[in-house]
Order: sequence, then C-alpha cells, then structure tokens
Amino acid sequence: MITLKSLAELAGHKLPTAVDIREVGPRDGLQLEEALSLEQKIEFIDALARTGVRRIEVTSFVSPTAVPALADAHDLVQELDRWPHIEFCALVAGYGGAKRALAAGITHLQYVISASDGHAQANAGKTVQESVHAGRAIIDLVHRSSGICEVIIATAFDCPFDGPTEPAQVAGIVSQLVVAGADRLTLADTIGTATPDRVLDLLQAIRPLYPDLAVGLHLHNTRDTAMANVLAALLIGVTDFDAAVGGLGGCPFAPGASGNLATEDLVNFLEDMGISTGIDLDATGEAGSLVAGFLDRPLNSALSKCSPRIGFTYATHRNHSLTGI
Amino acid sequence: MITLKSLAELAGHKLPTAVDIREVGPRDGLQLEEALSLEQKIEFIDALARTGVRRIEVTSFVSPTAVPALADAHDLVQELDRWPHIEFCALVAGYGGAKRALAAGITHLQYVISASDGHAQANAGKTVQESVHAGRAIIDLVHRSSGICEVIIATAFDCPFDGPTEPAQVAGIVSQLVVAGADRLTLADTIGTATPDRVLDLLQAIRPLYPDLAVGLHLHNTRDTAMANVLAALLIGVTDFDAAVGGLGGCPFAPGASGNLATEDLVNFLEDMGISTGIDLDATGEAGSLVAGFLDRPLNSALSKCSPRIGFTYATHRNHSLTGI
Repeated sequence: MITLKSLAELAGHKLPTAVDIREVGPRDGLQLEEALSLEQKIEFIDALARTGVRRIEVTSFVSPTAVPALADAHDLVQELDRWPHIEFCALVAGYGGAKRALAAGITHLQYVISASDGHAQANAGKTVQESVHAGRAIIDLVHRSSGICEVIIATAFDCPFDGPTEPAQVAGIVSQLVVAGADRLTLADTIGTATPDRVLDLLQAIRPLYPDLAVGLHLHNTRDTAMANVLAALLIGVTDFDAAVGGLGGCPFAPGASGNLATEDLVNFLEDMGISTGIDLDATGEAGSLVAGFLDRPLNSALSKCSPRIGFTYATHRNHSLTGI
Repeated sequence: MITLKSLAELAGHKLPTAVDIREVGPRDGLQLEEALSLEQKIEFIDALARTGVRRIEVTSFVSPTAVPALADAHDLVQELDRWPHIEFCALVAGYGGAKRALAAGITHLQYVISASDGHAQANAGKTVQESVHAGRAIIDLVHRSSGICEVIIATAFDCPFDGPTEPAQVAGIVSQLVVAGADRLTLADTIGTATPDRVLDLLQAIRPLYPDLAVGLHLHNTRDTAMANVLAALLIGVTDFDAAVGGLGGCPFAPGASGNLATEDLVNFLEDMGISTGIDLDATGEAGSLVAGFLDRPLNSALSKCSPRIGFTYATHRNHSLTGI
C-alpha cells in the first residue's frame, strides 16, 4: 500500500510530521492594498498571534513611495515586543533598507533578490549580479548587527519579463549568497506559475548542496497549483512554507485573482493529513475576518467560504443532496 | 534526481503521459443554477466541443421537480447527434430515470450511488443496500439496451450527514456492482474534503481488485485540495478525471464557494507538466466566458482571472514588480 509516507521514503526523504508555516499576510498580503493604519496592523498581528503561528513576515523596508502601504515599517517594528514568542522578519530589497530595518530594531531580515534580470531591474533597479553584490554587503551588515539574513529568490520559477528561470541560474545565485553567509533561503514562485515537477527540479538543484540550510517555499495560488506544489515539496521533506491568511496578496489590478497560498487552506490540508502546524483554524478564520473587514472585501481563501473538514458539523450541507456528487 | 515520473515508478506505477478529462459542466455544473434554455445549452456544448474534449456529462434524468435546471434532459439528448465525435453520458439515480434516459436515446448512463446511508436517503430516498439492488437492475437494463453503465460512488470520502466513509465501505459497494456488470467506476469527493493521503487509500482499496476496470475521480475544489488530489492520483497512474469549465458547480447558497475542479486549471496544470489532455485552453476560456454570460456571474476558475503559463506573454505583469515576490 503506497502512502505519502512511503512515497517520500522511496524517494529517499521523510514526509514531515510537522510543518512550520510563516505568515506573510502583514507584508506580502498587504503591500499592494490601501494602507491600513498602524492600529489596524497591530490588531491584525494580535489576531495572527492568537492563531499559534510562530513566524510572521511583518513588513518591508523599501521605498515608501513605491509601497505606501508599508511606509510605517519603522513604527510597526517598535510595537513588536508585544508578541515576544513570535519570530518576526522584515523584507529588504537593498542596503539602505537593510540599514533602516536594523536601525528600527528588527534583526531577522529577508533580502529579496530576483533570479532574472528583467524582474531585478523592475523590482530593485539592478541587474541580478549587482543584486548579488548588494546581497553580500547586506548579509555582512546584518551579521555585524548579530542579526539573521535570509535570502528570498524571487522569480525562481518564471519571470514576467524574461520567461522561465533555469534552476541552474537560481543555484548560481544561491551559491554566491550562501558563501557570503546567508542564513536561510526561500524560493518564491512570484507569479504563481510553478508546477510540482518544477518544484522538485528546483529544490533538488539546491538543497543537496547545502544540507544544513533551511530552504522554504513561497507559493502563490494564482493558477490553483500551490497546494499540489506543497504536496510535491512535502514528498522530498520540505517543512517551511509561507502563506497568508485569507489568501491575501492578490493583485488589486486583477480583482479576484488569487494571491498567496491561504494559511487556513494550507493548515486544513496539512492537519487533515496528520501533519501538524501548531496553528488553530478557528483563530485563523478570525484573523482573516478581521482583515477582510479592514480591507472591506471578501477573502480569497477556500475556507473563508466553507467549513474545514476537521471537526466539520455533519448535516449542514443539505444543498449537496439531490443528485449531488 | 526524483521526478514525478520516477516517484510513480518507485510506487510501482506509470505517470500518465496523457489524461482523459470528462467535462461535467453541463450536468454537475449547471444542476443547481437557474435553468439555461435549450438553445443556451446547445451553444454551451458547441463551445465545449471546440475545446477538443472527448467526453461530456451532458445532463441527468432525475426528478424535474428536484432539479429543474435539467428538466429538459430528453430534449437535449435529441440534439446530441450534432457532435458525433463526443462521447456523451447522462446521470441517473434510479430505475425510472434510467428507463427515461434510454428511451431518450442516450446509451452511456452513470448510475450514482451514495456510499453512506445519510446521503443515500437524502439523494435518492433509499438506503445504500437498496441502492445497490437498484443498481443491479439498472445495469441489467442498460446492458439489455446495449448501453454502457458506469457507477459513480458519491460521498466516497465523506458524507455531510454520516461523516467519514471507510474505503472498505466503498469497496463493498463496488464489488457488488462490478459483479453485476458495471462498466466503469468514478469515485466522487462530493463535498470536497478529500486529501491526497485518502485519495491514495481509496484508490488502492479498489483498483488492484479490478485491473481492467476504468476508475476515474470526480473532485470538488471546495477546500483547495483538488489539484493536490489529482497529483496523488497521477502518481499511482490514474488517467480519468472529471472537471467543469469555469469551476462550475458551486453551491448557489454559498456564493463564491468553489465547485468542481475547473477544467482550464486542470488542463493548464497537466499540459505544463507535459501531460497531454487534447484540450485547447483558449477554447476552454471561450466556453467559460459563454456560460458566465448565460449565468451572469464570474467564474470560479483561477485561469478565468489570469493567463496560463503555457504561452504566457511576458512583461504583462508589471504589477508584480516593486518588492513583489
């Protein structure tokens, strides 16, 4: 009898019994939205803290002109000691942002670098190789402040400008930044085009080279492939996934388009299979409802529109009767 | 290097190189909607025929009071010789419906039987065992008319009334109906609660016993698990999947809730991985737009809100720049 566990073992891996989900709603989820107030963000993070999540990507230190929704990054960081049990991190795209982040007092930085020149230019005004140079300096800066510097590879699968990204290109960037001291790595499916075969390819092009490096996935569900990509990654032992409550992060210029993989959908999926997340589904629903109220629009997650299977109340789905299959 | 192909081989199976998608939009997708006119249905099926799909679940012969949207089943079947290259099938839930379907001239019938008493009573007013008896008579009737009788097991994973369905319960029903001559089998995740581990369990409880029986999956994407379930099934060699263009089939009492796995999302997912479907994505989009216009509401599919990766036009996603990961 083939099970997910035995499939993973046949592949030389161990199916995780627990997964560590990082909540990215406050940063990736909100960055393109109308700015929430500092008070609303505090309320949102407070609601997220009640879900049991252990890691939160809380903001970014980038141009406030480009991303006005996160222009309050410094002020928000001053509030983070309210939640001492949560590991917060903030995204930076350049040296100036890294300095501002450290000055604000946050010590876990995520340096985002695009794997493709087209996106690197659009996102950071640099080539990939210039971004690698900047990354070396940022890692050094963070380490001199006794901080942690994660590297996030954007457009790790496809670039909206340059097309498909070769795994070797990603591996080359990673190798330079690992040598420079990167503490952890996240591979991002920026435009939601990854499929399970490519997830396997990319992860296997990188993870075996750095067995001690934590490698996570940042998936968007734009084309309804994110959960299948999670499954593929689980089968080769990946345990770190980004997700945003309510599937926040859709593009406001494409109403209804899915954003990040939704935290509650991922939690439901994993917990149902006996893979623990430490995250409470009811509390996640409350955090989602809160932010949906702030944004004044419905959420993108599946579970915002139905009940989870775990503990679902029977006889509440009568609409499914009458030839329903 | 582990690939999906090698994973399937390690599991003793062959990853499909081609998948046969059955379009269920005209039946499962429309049954709970306001009734379309016969002319609209013909236009819809005509648009579906242009996608290249080879099999369509076109209607059901059930109580017109219970399912008024499909009350024109007899008349619709009279139109089906417009598309001689398509294999049409119609759902029935009892002997009377089967007689009416055959009298109308359709010869591929799908007898739907619930795996749980709660759903069997709500759906067909019978116990499971009474439904098995009815199934035997229907299979016999269909065969005497030289037709094909497929069996669809509803609530094969969970029942909204009775809770989880044991694979052994499904296997018991299947064995009785296979002995009675069932020509093919579809396992339905009626309320969209299946996860990959349970897909593997159920399929392996049944397929090895009947190596010559075509076994397909009918998945709902209610909890964003359908594509991961497809991946699990592919890894053990399943090639037959139901899907509905636009993700039709959501419950009208739960606005926005996902319905069937969307045909275009499944096609994009499979074709991107080199698994051929014979279905044209552009034509699928046109069929979806057509029916969205008839129903006067947006579709549930992911691809109705973005472009597919295959052949996607670069530099059209500028909104993803500026710290977008």
